[in-house]
Amino acid sequence: MADRSLSFVAMLGSLRKGSLNRVVANALPALAPEGVKITALPSIGDLPHYDADIQAEGFPPLVRQLGDAIKGADGVIIVTPEYNYSVPGVLKNAIDWVSRLPDTPFAGKPVDIMSASPSILGGARAQYHLRQSMVFLDALVLNKPEIIITFAAQKLDIEKSKISDDATRDIVTKNLEAFAAFARKHG
Amino acid sequence: MADRSLSFVAMLGSLRKGSLNRVVANALPALAPEGVKITALPSIGDLPHYDADIQAEGFPPLVRQLGDAIKGADGVIIVTPEYNYSVPGVLKNAIDWVSRLPDTPFAGKPVDIMSASPSILGGARAQYHLRQSMVFLDALVLNKPEIIITFAAQKLDIEKSKISDDATRDIVTKNLEAFAAFARKHG
Amino acid sequence: MADRSLSFVAMLGSLRKGSLNRVVANALPALAPEGVKITALPSIGDLPHYDADIQAEGFPPLVRQLGDAIKGADGVIIVTPEYNYSVPGVLKNAIDWVSRLPDTPFAGKPVDIMSASPSILGGARAQYHLRQSMVFLDALVLNKPEIIITFAAQKLDIEKSKISDDATRDIVTKNLEAFAAFARKHG
Amino acid sequence: MADRSLSFVAMLGSLRKGSLNRVVANALPALAPEGVKITALPSIGDLPHYDADIQAEGFPPLVRQLGDAIKGADGVIIVTPEYNYSVPGVLKNAIDWVSRLPDTPFAGKPVDIMSASPSILGGARAQYHLRQSMVFLDALVLNKPEIIITFAAQKLDIEKSKISDDATRDIVTKNLEAFAAFARKHG
Repeated sequence: MADRSLSFVAMLGSLRKGSLNRVVANALPALAPEGVKITALPSIGDLPHYDADIQAEGFPPLVRQLGDAIKGADGVIIVTPEYNYSVPGVLKNAIDWVSRLPDTPFAGKPVDIMSASPSILGGARAQYHLRQSMVFLDALVLNKPEIIITFAAQKLDIEKSKISDDATRDIVTKNLEAFAAFARKHG
Repeated sequence: MADRSLSFVAMLGSLRKGSLNRVVANALPALAPEGVKITALPSIGDLPHYDADIQAEGFPPLVRQLGDAIKGADGVIIVTPEYNYSVPGVLKNAIDWVSRLPDTPFAGKPVDIMSASPSILGGARAQYHLRQSMVFLDALVLNKPEIIITFAAQKLDIEKSKISDDATRDIVTKNLEAFAAFARKHG
Repeated sequence: MADRSLSFVAMLGSLRKGSLNRVVANALPALAPEGVKITALPSIGDLPHYDADIQAEGFPPLVRQLGDAIKGADGVIIVTPEYNYSVPGVLKNAIDWVSRLPDTPFAGKPVDIMSASPSILGGARAQYHLRQSMVFLDALVLNKPEIIITFAAQKLDIEKSKISDDATRDIVTKNLEAFAAFARKHG
Repeated sequence: MADRSLSFVAMLGSLRKGSLNRVVANALPALAPEGVKITALPSIGDLPHYDADIQAEGFPPLVRQLGDAIKGADGVIIVTPEYNYSVPGVLKNAIDWVSRLPDTPFAGKPVDIMSASPSILGGARAQYHLRQSMVFLDALVLNKPEIIITFAAQKLDIEKSKISDDATRDIVTKNLEAFAAFARKHG
């Protein structure tokens, strides 16, 4: 029997047009295993800052849109830079909004985390903080292989939005295969 | 010789009008030791999401205003809720912006962290993530006494913006004394 | 069809005879759902400190014994105090040893974490550090309900090795039910 | 006026004879700035596992010896590998023991953390966990420059117990200068 086809959504933690992490996110669909579709979520930059007073008047439409897309997906791939040794505020804000939705889109949802950074640790510190948030959200986060792209400026082709380093493209491909298997088993 | 007078600024991590942490922040000036002035920073809710493309066109005036106030202060008190077992996105976003200023307002700056939450852990998880960001910013964070206000709805008077619980008011007062001594020694 | 019966092993992070966490660990078998057996692992206090030079001469028999028991179990319940805002050295040492075994006993293994402490945060900080180790070990850690027993001296009966507080006994019971379901689904 | 001379002690987190971190620790005295002496602490491998029942009968002599040496030093340099994405159990155990001493040797003590690892993240994850323990111990931990030696097997000469990579030796030298200034200012 063929593997069940899967649909993943990708959330990008950076707003910058020339973002290294945007390159990674853009490269994912072409690296996905057969039967796996990866779609970008709408930009999280259009969300207001989380404010319970705004929530009390009704969730912004974009929050519901993000929540529905996550709820309907077989898994969420978060691709993010690290800011100040942690999760970017703008990404955390998106999670803060989605977490308040009554249908808890992240609950039981397979999640895959990737980070790229021009420096030595490749955004790893942001990933462990994000994993802690996922405990509260009751998501199921893939353990391995971790995608921590150090010195990313030398491994990514920003112009072509591709992963130019073979070893990096390889490990990302393996991660997507592992995530597909993980989502099929645990999702 | 009298102690050197000190001027602290307080940054609030919640936007909600009825926020428990707003009550704590509002209560601080009256609990400060003699010679210590505590002023609220402008709301971080008016910042755009951090975006390097915006930064490239010039820092928003509010970022510079926050940076100057922090740079000029003898210490920064951060009062924040915990969202999803970590720092609220809106607070992290403010830090992400300020961290990019060329004059590095947080470098060598004494920092004091407080959190309140209606639930069992009082926002403690957010504090340790925030401390990790402060390593990168090269700030000096007070260790003790930690202000972790659990079950805060029963300890705060939202109407009067006061700390109604004696033990809580006491420990916050002691924290401010410790922070003043810390800022005088290490700032 | 009846649920598949399960066999869990419990690892205790404290050596002290009158340990609060020992009370919790001892109370588990009687609170387990039908069809679930919980057995204590041998004391981790008899392990040497991890030393790669010792390993090079052969794993101590107790390491193999722990590894085999974990490998053969349907899940591992770790019950631990928090020391210095993190995992006790003695518990981490046991994990350090087991992690070196060639058959990777924790890989894909359902894990449940509980902590008790006489103070305000109930050992929560140790739990999040332990969860980070479990990422490397590729274990599957239950998210909810978290068992964080604050002010544990008032909720446990050390003499009778029982959980005397109703609400605590209740949440531990619910946790074991959730862990059984989790192990059946993901193990 | 000449700088005050300083005496630091170094604590090693690995027991292995050929440990990469042992090479780093051994290399420190020769890289210390003028007026700064660095002495190795006794091996932490000879401590028993922390057990409150042992403590109740009296601290082991080695615990007191470690505590006295730390208490008497102007700063503590911890050099450690990372095991399972966190602090080695054996190192944490030493800290767990010392933390119980009534004279709190780490309180107000300048602390410097270094890690080396053969792999991509250089032990960084252990450092942030260790920093969290230092909050409880009320130590003052140097922020920068962080010493995270990635791919350490290529940068260290195990035979000669020296740092063979120029850039690594340079940053360690700068770290020791920064730590001396930090200890003089904050100790």
